[in-house]
Order: sequence, then C-alpha cells, then structure tokens
Amino acid sequence: MSYPRIAGQSLSRLAALSDGIFAVAMTLLVLDLRVPVNEVAHPERPLWSDGMAGSEHEVWHALADVGPHVLPYAISFMTLGIFWIGQQTQFNHIARTNRHLTWIHLSFLALISLMPFSTNFLAEYATARVPFILYWLNLLLLGLVLMASLGYAGRAELFKPTATEEVRGALRRRIVFYQACYAVAMALCVVNTYVSMIALILLQLGSAIAPPIAPFNRY
Amino acid sequence: MSYPRIAGQSLSRLAALSDGIFAVAMTLLVLDLRVPVNEVAHPERPLWSDGMAGSEHEVWHALADVGPHVLPYAISFMTLGIFWIGQQTQFNHIARTNRHLTWIHLSFLALISLMPFSTNFLAEYATARVPFILYWLNLLLLGLVLMASLGYAGRAELFKPTATEEVRGALRRRIVFYQACYAVAMALCVVNTYVSMIALILLQLGSAIAPPIAPFNRY
Amino acid sequence: MSYPRIAGQSLSRLAALSDGIFAVAMTLLVLDLRVPVNEVAHPERPLWSDGMAGSEHEVWHALADVGPHVLPYAISFMTLGIFWIGQQTQFNHIARTNRHLTWIHLSFLALISLMPFSTNFLAEYATARVPFILYWLNLLLLGLVLMASLGYAGRAELFKPTATEEVRGALRRRIVFYQACYAVAMALCVVNTYVSMIALILLQLGSAIAPPIAPFNRY
Amino acid sequence: MSYPRIAGQSLSRLAALSDGIFAVAMTLLVLDLRVPVNEVAHPERPLWSDGMAGSEHEVWHALADVGPHVLPYAISFMTLGIFWIGQQTQFNHIARTNRHLTWIHLSFLALISLMPFSTNFLAEYATARVPFILYWLNLLLLGLVLMASLGYAGRAELFKPTATEEVRGALRRRIVFYQACYAVAMALCVVNTYVSMIALILLQLGSAIAPPIAPFNRY
Repeated sequence: MSYPRIAGQSLSRLAALSDGIFAVAMTLLVLDLRVPVNEVAHPERPLWSDGMAGSEHEVWHALADVGPHVLPYAISFMTLGIFWIGQQTQFNHIARTNRHLTWIHLSFLALISLMPFSTNFLAEYATARVPFILYWLNLLLLGLVLMASLGYAGRAELFKPTATEEVRGALRRRIVFYQACYAVAMALCVVNTYVSMIALILLQLGSAIAPPIAPFNRY
Repeated sequence: MSYPRIAGQSLSRLAALSDGIFAVAMTLLVLDLRVPVNEVAHPERPLWSDGMAGSEHEVWHALADVGPHVLPYAISFMTLGIFWIGQQTQFNHIARTNRHLTWIHLSFLALISLMPFSTNFLAEYATARVPFILYWLNLLLLGLVLMASLGYAGRAELFKPTATEEVRGALRRRIVFYQACYAVAMALCVVNTYVSMIALILLQLGSAIAPPIAPFNRY
Repeated sequence: MSYPRIAGQSLSRLAALSDGIFAVAMTLLVLDLRVPVNEVAHPERPLWSDGMAGSEHEVWHALADVGPHVLPYAISFMTLGIFWIGQQTQFNHIARTNRHLTWIHLSFLALISLMPFSTNFLAEYATARVPFILYWLNLLLLGLVLMASLGYAGRAELFKPTATEEVRGALRRRIVFYQACYAVAMALCVVNTYVSMIALILLQLGSAIAPPIAPFNRY
Repeated sequence: MSYPRIAGQSLSRLAALSDGIFAVAMTLLVLDLRVPVNEVAHPERPLWSDGMAGSEHEVWHALADVGPHVLPYAISFMTLGIFWIGQQTQFNHIARTNRHLTWIHLSFLALISLMPFSTNFLAEYATARVPFILYWLNLLLLGLVLMASLGYAGRAELFKPTATEEVRGALRRRIVFYQACYAVAMALCVVNTYVSMIALILLQLGSAIAPPIAPFNRY
C-alpha cells in the first residue's frame, strides 16, 4: 500500500479548511482599512493621555486616509464571495476526493490567501499598472484552477450522479464567460485604472445580484 | 441549465463560513488592544537587551494607553454576539438556501467583517461624532440585511415548517425593537458621545442577559 | 412567542464558533513572536535591496529580541489547550443549549479572545506585577465562567443522561483544584515573577501530560 | 470518576480546531508579504492626500521589497498543505480519541502555529544558517509528533479496523522517507542556503504532485 493512494480523501475536511481560509481572507481584507493613530490623542504618548481627544478635523483626515482603500476592499470581498460560491457549487456535485483533487484545491486556497496581498497592493498603488496586472493574474489563476478541478474530477470519476453533462457544462461556461469579462475589464486599464475598477465592480455586482436579464441570469 | 440556478445551495457551508468570519472578527477586535512596546526594555533595541525590564510606572503608562479601547471593545464583542445569535436563530428555521439568500448573507458577513474597523475608529476618535454615525450605520445595515433575509426567505419559501407566522413575527419584532433602541442611543450623541456609549452598552447587556422583565423578555 | 425563547439554540454552531475563536487565538499568540526587521537588509529601504543580507550577528540580535516572548507564548498555548478541552468535555455531556447558556459561553469566548492581549502584556512587562495580576484574573474568570456553565446547565436540565452526578462532580472538582493551584502560583509573584511563571508552566505541563500519579491522574 | 478519563474525547472537534488553525496559519503567511506604504502617496500624511499617486518606479521598488519573501511563502504553504494532508489521513483511520491523543495533536498544532514565525525568520535572514536550522527543527518536530500519534493510537487501540498493519506501515514509511529527505536538504545549507531552499521546494513539489515515478508514487 502506498501513501499517495490513501492520502487526502476527506471532502468534508477540505470543505472545512476552505471555509476557514475564506473566512480569514475576507476578514483580513479589512485590516487594510487601518485607522491612522489619532495624533491629537497620542502626541508623544504622554503618561496620562485621555486617549479620547480628536477634533472633527482629525477625523476627516483619518477618513481621507482610509478612503482610497474602500473600493479595492469592496471589489475583493465580492470576488472572494464569487469564488467561494464557485467552489461550493462544484463541491455540491462531487462525491469524494483524492490527493490530486485535494492538491488542486490547496492551490486554489493558496491563491485565495494571496487576495488580501493583491488587494492591498492595488489600493496602495492604484494608478500604476503593475498591481492591476498582478490582481488580474490572481483572478485568472483562480479561474484556471477551478477549471482544472472540473476537468480532473470528471476524468477521475469523482462526481456525484447529479453532475450531469448539463450541470458540468453550466459550471464550465460560467468560468469561461467571467474570465473573458475580467480580461476585457483589465484591458481597460490601458485607458485608466479607475475605468478598470469600475468595470470590475459592475461585473461583480452583476454576478452577485444575478438580475433576471441576460447574460447575468445565464452564467 | 444556468449557473445561477445551481449555485450557492449549501446551508451548512454558509453556516460554517459565518462561524469562521464571526470567530475572526471577534478575535481581531482584541488586536486593537495593543500593548505599547516597552520602551524601557527596548530603548534602542540593544544587542543583548534582557527584554524584561519594566518599572511599575511603565506598566501604568501602558494600561492608560489601552484603557480607552476597552469600552468600544466590550460593546463590539457583545454586538457581534447578538448578531451571531440573530443569524443563527434565523438559520435554525431555514430549510435550504439559494444563491440570492447566500448573497444576502455574504453582505451580512461583509458588514460583520467591518466591525473591527468601525470599533477601532470609534475607540481612536471617541469624542468625535463622525465615527459614531459610521458605527451606527454599521449596526443599522446589519439590521436591514437580517430583515431582508427574513423577507426573502419567506417569499422564496426557504423556511422550515417550524417557522410559523408567530416565529417569523418574533424575529421581525426583535429586529425592529432593537434598531429603534440603537437609533435613540445614537441620537444621544448630540449630548455627549459617552452618554451614547453607556446607553448602547446597557442595551446590549439587556439583550445578552434578557432579564425576566419587559421589554427584555419579549424582544 | 418571544424572541428570547427561540434564540441561540444551536449547540453545533456554538461549538463551531468556539473552535474558530480558539484557532484564531492560538495562532495570534505567535504574532507576538515578531521577527525584527533585518536592518542590514533594509538599511534605508534602497531601491534594489537584495533583501537577503544578514550576518549571523544580526540573527542572534533578532533571536535575543524574540527570546523573552517564548515562555509566555508556551504558557498561553497550553492554557488555551486546557480550556478548550475543558469546554469540549462539558459540551460532550450537554444535550442542547438555550440563549442563556449560549451567552455564558460567549463570555467564555470573550475571555479566550483576550488571552493574546494578556500574554503580550505579560511578555512585554515580565518583571512587573500588574500584568501578572491581569493574567491571573483572566484565568480566574475563565474558571468561574466554566463553573457557571456547569451550574446553569444543571439547573436548566440541559445535560445528557450521560452527565451523571459523578461526571458533574469530576468536572467541578477539576476546575476548583486547578484554580486553587493557579492562585498559589500567582501568589508566588510576591517572591519573583519568574518563580510564578515556572510554577505555572509546570502546572500546565502536569495538566497536559496527566502522568499516572496523584493529583494529576485525578483532576 | 476522574477528569482525565472523561476529557478530550471529541475527534470531530479536534478536526475542526485543526482545520481552523491550519486555515489561520496558511492565511497569516501572506501577512509577511507586506506591501510597503506608498511613500509618494503619503509623504507626510497630508490632510487631503489623494492617496492614489504612485509612479511605476515606486511600484517596482515595492515589488523588490516583497520579492525575497515569495520563495519562503511558497515553501511554507506547501509544507502546511503536506502536514494537513498527513494529519487528515491519520484521522481518517482513527475511530476515537482520548486526552493523550488530543494533547499529542495540540502539540502538533502548536508547531503548525509556529510556521508563520519560522517562515518570516527565514525570509528576513535568508542567507544566515540559524533560521534554517530553526525551520528544519520545526519540520523535524512536526514529523516526530505525527509519528508519536501513530504509535500512541496503535498502543491505545484508537484505530478503526480499516487501519490495517499495511496502512499503518505506509503512514510510517511516508514520515521516515520525507524526514530523511528534509535532513539531506537542510544539510545542503553548508553549501549555500539557496541550494537548500531549491532542494526543499523540489521535494515539496514532488510530494504535492506525486508524479507516477518512484519514490514519489510510493511515499
């Protein structure tokens, strides 16, 4: 008996690890929205600072500092939600796992855990193009790994009987359609990075809300 | 078959993600209670600092620095507990989910993940009104999303048979009653932000302890 | 129907939230073991720093900085393990929960989430007595809350039939015995805080290993 | 009835705590990939900073700063994945737990929670040997604890009937083979720490991909 044949066969633990990593990644995004230390309250950290001073002026200063991070935060939270649903929907149709499928999903989770970094980089250097390309690579790789998961689960016969060819086709078309949209949205950064961000957020909103109009009610 | 029809149907994974996000948010609150670096022990980070010096004077200094963060910490931990119980109680009466209900709860979780930020902002600028209004908006939106969840689950027939009209009414009245109280507590910040905070903490204590007197034994 | 009567009745979600909070708290402890930034590698953050310099001298400097935090880290990880087992053992004998028991355990979890703070405070000011007293208060309150949980679950008849009087007695005696030991260990800080820490770590080791000698095989 | 006899008997809660700790540790690794603050955008934190400036020059500067942390990040994520699968595979063959096995796995989790620290130390002082030796000790202890878990579960008859001698042998040989490889990879640091890192990453890739050639299809 070889170790690779018996390793990594628990689908429920893979789901639990995934929920944990998504939960931490979604919550770490917010760490990027750091409130700057109140410099009135801690001018040079006096012994008995009341710690509570803070003119309205200081507060607006603090908000202005946080502001540029809000849009990337919102985009990334929605992205994580979209990919969490994407993985969950595949898992609902998978009967069991093996070590190869487990490693495919560990790669997926590694890319998920990189999202707070990609987001922070985007927020900190929002007018530059390199962070955009990295962010898009992150999205692209997430899509490719989910596609690989679908393909491998099919070849290795890990699907439940509920995963008819129709279901698998819907899962595949969904990934292809949104990845094509992401590529277009990202290409808009040759115009301006903010145009790209707006396109991206509209796309994510469409995906989240899924209004009853094409293409959102289809993919 | 379209992707939106088969996506996001696992109630148990939504519950697991929720527990993860609440767990991280509740624990991140405490990161705000940062112990200031002991400046006696690390004056300029000498090579062989014993790292352990620290007069009682320094310790009180450190506590004074942490002090103003304790009250917002306590309020927010209780708030997270209250909303965790609120969501859990709804889930106990929900039979299944779909992608719309899943996204309603992802919005709920996004608001939950913002609580450490709102709390930190409140603690750092406790005498200013803007952080109070943001904090209250956070509470209000949490209430509205839970209300939307109740409404949508009713319309889409996702409830279990246990969710009689009486049960749903109790869930609705609870949200309306406490949101009204929060609005009053927040309005008190025109007097003084500390009055608001005290009102808020009494309210949360009432909700947590639920003493056998009206209105706490009712809502 | 009143909200308090139907709220907070899921024991499995309470267990899941607890596991999440313990997991985050145990992992956040290690954030306290911060590696100081390599000042040789980033003297003033040059554009193309190789980022990899670092004489052995610098490394020992860094280790010396981390050193004093290792003992409090170890004590606190063991403490969290002990209380996690304590809560889990109670839950194994509890049949169902209600909103009061849920809030008792939310208080327990709030105290757990404070452990990284108490630990960091102890590590940063290890020779002072105030951090010791706060740390001990944290332990004492954890014990009192677990005791309250036992008492309330008994009065509200939430136990499984397996929770015979013998089992409940063993759970109670365990808490009383270790709390008495903690009090003695803490009292030793009038001699020296390191004596206290050593006593505490021996006690935790005894509890973790449970060697087949009294009192460790009993409580 | 003594407390040690009834404590720590829930295998499902031990699995849930493990998934939580692995999820947090895997996600905390990425906190090490800190984006340096954009100094163009926040020169001295002006009141109305647009927060979005950032020449491409600044961006490359930031990437150069992050660069050296990527390789240790990748190695450690794979390491955590490997040990997560290792523990999971054991648990698949374990029927129940007791307090001793629970403490063996709490030690395992303590070592897991140290991985972000060991990784950060390695990344920050990558050319020094002390961090390498600490990193290797971390891996070695993880292997020893998993071995102890196998041995103890056998002696205490905690295995399921599926855990035949053949299965247990495969689990043991796996640990011995990879620990031997780690020792060799680490010994290469007398040549150069980068040679060690490359050897380590090839080994982890081999373990993750498990190509159908010996020894990777065996251990």
